[in-house]
Amino acid sequence: MITPSILPGFEELLPQEQLVFNQMMKIIQTTFEANGLQPMDTPVIEKAEVLLAKSEGETEKQVYRFTKGKHDLALRFDLTVPFARYVSQHFNELVFPFKRYQIGKVYRGEKSQKGRYREFYQCDIDVVGKDSLSITNDAWIISVMAEILSSLQLPAYKLKISNRKILTGLLQAQKITEIDAVMVLIDKYTKMDKETFYEELIEITGSENASILMNVINSANQPESILQQLCSMYPDNTNVSQGIKELLNVIELLEQFGIPKQNYQIDLSIIRGLDYYTGTIFETELTGYEQYGSICSGGRYDQLTDLYSNNRIQGMGASIGLTRLFYILRETHLIDDIMQQASCLDFLILPIGNTLRDCIALSKKIRLLGYRCSIYLESDSLKKSLTYAHKIQVPYIILLGEDEVKEHKLTIKDMKNRSSLTIDAASIENFLNGRND
Amino acid sequence: MITPSILPGFEELLPQEQLVFNQMMKIIQTTFEANGLQPMDTPVIEKAEVLLAKSEGETEKQVYRFTKGKHDLALRFDLTVPFARYVSQHFNELVFPFKRYQIGKVYRGEKSQKGRYREFYQCDIDVVGKDSLSITNDAWIISVMAEILSSLQLPAYKLKISNRKILTGLLQAQKITEIDAVMVLIDKYTKMDKETFYEELIEITGSENASILMNVINSANQPESILQQLCSMYPDNTNVSQGIKELLNVIELLEQFGIPKQNYQIDLSIIRGLDYYTGTIFETELTGYEQYGSICSGGRYDQLTDLYSNNRIQGMGASIGLTRLFYILRETHLIDDIMQQASCLDFLILPIGNTLRDCIALSKKIRLLGYRCSIYLESDSLKKSLTYAHKIQVPYIILLGEDEVKEHKLTIKDMKNRSSLTIDAASIENFLNGRND
Repeated sequence: MITPSILPGFEELLPQEQLVFNQMMKIIQTTFEANGLQPMDTPVIEKAEVLLAKSEGETEKQVYRFTKGKHDLALRFDLTVPFARYVSQHFNELVFPFKRYQIGKVYRGEKSQKGRYREFYQCDIDVVGKDSLSITNDAWIISVMAEILSSLQLPAYKLKISNRKILTGLLQAQKITEIDAVMVLIDKYTKMDKETFYEELIEITGSENASILMNVINSANQPESILQQLCSMYPDNTNVSQGIKELLNVIELLEQFGIPKQNYQIDLSIIRGLDYYTGTIFETELTGYEQYGSICSGGRYDQLTDLYSNNRIQGMGASIGLTRLFYILRETHLIDDIMQQASCLDFLILPIGNTLRDCIALSKKIRLLGYRCSIYLESDSLKKSLTYAHKIQVPYIILLGEDEVKEHKLTIKDMKNRSSLTIDAASIENFLNGRND
Repeated sequence: MITPSILPGFEELLPQEQLVFNQMMKIIQTTFEANGLQPMDTPVIEKAEVLLAKSEGETEKQVYRFTKGKHDLALRFDLTVPFARYVSQHFNELVFPFKRYQIGKVYRGEKSQKGRYREFYQCDIDVVGKDSLSITNDAWIISVMAEILSSLQLPAYKLKISNRKILTGLLQAQKITEIDAVMVLIDKYTKMDKETFYEELIEITGSENASILMNVINSANQPESILQQLCSMYPDNTNVSQGIKELLNVIELLEQFGIPKQNYQIDLSIIRGLDYYTGTIFETELTGYEQYGSICSGGRYDQLTDLYSNNRIQGMGASIGLTRLFYILRETHLIDDIMQQASCLDFLILPIGNTLRDCIALSKKIRLLGYRCSIYLESDSLKKSLTYAHKIQVPYIILLGEDEVKEHKLTIKDMKNRSSLTIDAASIENFLNGRND
């Protein structure tokens, strides 16, 4: 006999957990679709040469890569590279601006550690324009994610927003040659000891520049004044001025899109890695749970498809790491209550005697009214059926015996209140419409 | 530059196709959930030793198997083996009868040919009982699939139903030793030249037995009389009598579950491979498109978890091959119309002048009423916006200019009729509720 088990770093959920996970995924998907984002799906396995065209060191090491027959294969490690490939490959068949969402699993053979999975769900949205794309899209993409974060039953969230051009321009103006090294360092700021950070920063930029940079990084409480300072300090650097203009524009648009003021702020310390972004960048923290890192992030890019195509595109995208978000919520017990009450059913019908045909008709009626309903099909004792009903946590059961059928009645038991009610079979619709949930 | 392309045998859909594919998936998922099936998800990558514990020759060859670090990995080739592993692994945490659905991609490195993909979606449902499971479940599982097949816009379908015990018992009674060889042969019956088939059958069973078997295989038009004959010919074989009893019981139950008579029939020639099934088996053909094979099939099993566990389970399951079904529908042009009309939007709002804030408020209102709505965010000419609207096939656009905002009006353009209508902004709700679609 073989011990049934899964690989380390992989995860599967128990029924109660899966119900809640799927509820969250449904809210995400429904919101994407309500906002007119086109569904997209790409293969999990791609040609290694295509998928890894741009990747280096760390990514390359983590990728699941293997051969089958004469093919060199790799599993996707995000949904962004396949998206770039898709847009390039089908460029002439797409309508621009092309707005897509994709929800799917991605694979990274990371070192196994708590909350880091080797297979996890990403929920991505992007809008790409041919040649150009208005800045309003940056705020729109963020607002779609904000709508989702408000719909999921989460603690308060805070969107931290910046523009990549500002730091880039500042470092250019400071005549620092190792721009990437500074970016990588700042990207690690929140995870580092502050003294060590400052020492390393001085080492690369010199102490005068470092002091200005520290002001910028710590600007979250009074970002407008820092932005003004930067404007006057570097009037000739177009990256600085353009970045500030875009950032203030996006902030103003977020207000128009109706995101509550307390849910977003300028934070010039965020970087979001070096891979794609060239303009707006943002990330999202759950207030009180900042140590878990960002649960939703994204940004503006303009060279995403350069490796695959000469067509110029401009895009804005964002992503929710659903597996990770679910992990945080479970770990912090924020969804314990929801999980304990989750059920795959609204109604369970218990046939008593020879009433299957009537139970089937009744369950169809209930399903047509939008409720999940099934019939207990085992010929067990009533006690055993009720134990089952309790275990699956169905809120209502309906008992349908031969007498009830004859008298056109049915008995509904509320499993929470332990109360029961006998009604005319014909009035089930009224009963259902009268429920408050 | 790298040519953007995907692997041979893999597929991705263009936006219009994806919309229709997802509509079908949504119908399947919604029906599963309405019937109280619990969502389930398992890793795409599993331990090779666990996943391939039972597989032989053909399966083993097709599997994507590779190593990473010290791990021997394999991609799932169906959703049944992972289900068996899941039930065994989490046996004490599940409530039985355990009813689950799973929709996911599976992988088979088959020889590349038309309509055969190496990555494809399966939509599986199963119900498993501890020790026992009433036969009513066999009909219930089939009825859930029938409900879906009726909801999808398909040609007429026919469920072909048999019971594995009947042929097994018959071959036992005939004292045939090579039962598996006969089963494998009959499994290929519809794809073979009839004469060759008969010759090969005689070779294994002898001519007298072969003649009886041919009667059984060709019984679709008068199955009841053949079943009666078998009963009287082999009164002592419990497999034959038990199989016939179960089959007639399931047929009677299908009627109770309300499946139209013309959608199902007994067909003793179906086999469904040798892997799992031990009782009820069924498959489904689209009338007029039989050459494409079965689009939905399943059956009863009782040894599924034997390799992983000593716990006895009894189960009934079924599966729709969604990628394959979609391929058939596209290939036969059965969904051309649906595909041509599909849109990711119900309403597109065109801001004219400085009305973004009002457009955002309006689009929220429309989405709250259940419609998909987005705003055209580029500052293009009206002509360019209208071209975009035509290309994405949105049925309605709403023009919102500064004058309209001032007068609390808005103009709705019906893109199909090319008619337009100016209404009070406040009455948008009435307009939407009055639409017939």
